[in-house]
Amino acid sequence: MHHQSLEPCLGPLFARHILARNGESSDHALLSTDCLHNSDEFNYGVETWEAYKRGCLSDDLIEEQKKVQEANLLIFQFPLYWFSMPAIMKGWMDRVLVQGFAHEFPNCYDSGLLKNKLALFSFTTGGSKEMYAKGGINGDIRYLLWPMQHGIMHFCGVKVLEPHICFAPEYVSEEKRKEMLLAWAQRLKTLWKEEPINCSPEWYFK
Amino acid sequence: MHHQSLEPCLGPLFARHILARNGESSDHALLSTDCLHNSDEFNYGVETWEAYKRGCLSDDLIEEQKKVQEANLLIFQFPLYWFSMPAIMKGWMDRVLVQGFAHEFPNCYDSGLLKNKLALFSFTTGGSKEMYAKGGINGDIRYLLWPMQHGIMHFCGVKVLEPHICFAPEYVSEEKRKEMLLAWAQRLKTLWKEEPINCSPEWYFK
Repeated sequence: MHHQSLEPCLGPLFARHILARNGESSDHALLSTDCLHNSDEFNYGVETWEAYKRGCLSDDLIEEQKKVQEANLLIFQFPLYWFSMPAIMKGWMDRVLVQGFAHEFPNCYDSGLLKNKLALFSFTTGGSKEMYAKGGINGDIRYLLWPMQHGIMHFCGVKVLEPHICFAPEYVSEEKRKEMLLAWAQRLKTLWKEEPINCSPEWYFK
Repeated sequence: MHHQSLEPCLGPLFARHILARNGESSDHALLSTDCLHNSDEFNYGVETWEAYKRGCLSDDLIEEQKKVQEANLLIFQFPLYWFSMPAIMKGWMDRVLVQGFAHEFPNCYDSGLLKNKLALFSFTTGGSKEMYAKGGINGDIRYLLWPMQHGIMHFCGVKVLEPHICFAPEYVSEEKRKEMLLAWAQRLKTLWKEEPINCSPEWYFK
């Protein structure tokens, strides 16, 4: 199997991101061309699933999966970009949470393979709390949590704690920013006592 | 200004993604260190805004912005990954739709800088239509369109046509897949006659 044969269907950029060429660094690749399951009909989902089972994912992914496996609580800290996480973090989700590791039908949602873990999305926004209120210009902040909290975490069986949101730190006073940090430090002290949210459409869209 | 001075606060990986070092290829960088607006206090939003105004964004971004500028209709075609677009496409949004080009407060939403353009999200899913129904396990497919259609496109002033969704092409018959392609070809013929959706929370969450 030669990696070149995949380029016409995947496009060279995409192929470079998914596949490490023999002898090349696999820094940004998902799996090595040495160990494709079916090189005649490339199926991204099947290939990552198979690669996971055979320990053929690239080293950085195996490393990240170990961290997830050992963790009881995953905290994702990021600046909100375009009503979502920045692409680099979405890439982590896309690459790390592969079938076999995080889910394997019918083991998804409440029986997802990462059940018994907790997650918390902690992020900063550009817009104010008023802009992210239900009648605000951006709509209720909960609307945009659905893909991240339900579509990713809940799908993998992970229970989700209330998000931690710092609204518009760039536009508030230094004093207010210090209060934000203190509030976060305070919350972390009793985080283990918190109950997960009720992950249902009602929580998000009521 | 030396790029190294930014690495402690940004982290080396992040710095590498944002800044092209002098003399290095700017393939994956957002702007060049040659032309930072304020290198003492790096602010991502401000730097990209300033770089846009001074024509200092990296060449590939300027190229993409030209394509957007010339287009009347933007069609985003992708496989749905984790209730959203794949990271590589989210990266396009994060990098291309910078302040000054796509929005510039208060020019956002209906007065966004890309007003008079249309967009359409056309994507394939893994799950079936039933799984993405309102009472289905994944919830109404419209829930996950909010960040992409409202948070990105509408924010930039772009009006959005009904999404084009091919449910689970991987799991249907070859005949059904051909029907899907035909339906898309058919829709494209009269796309210009379509009215945009009413981009309000009611459309998404009713």
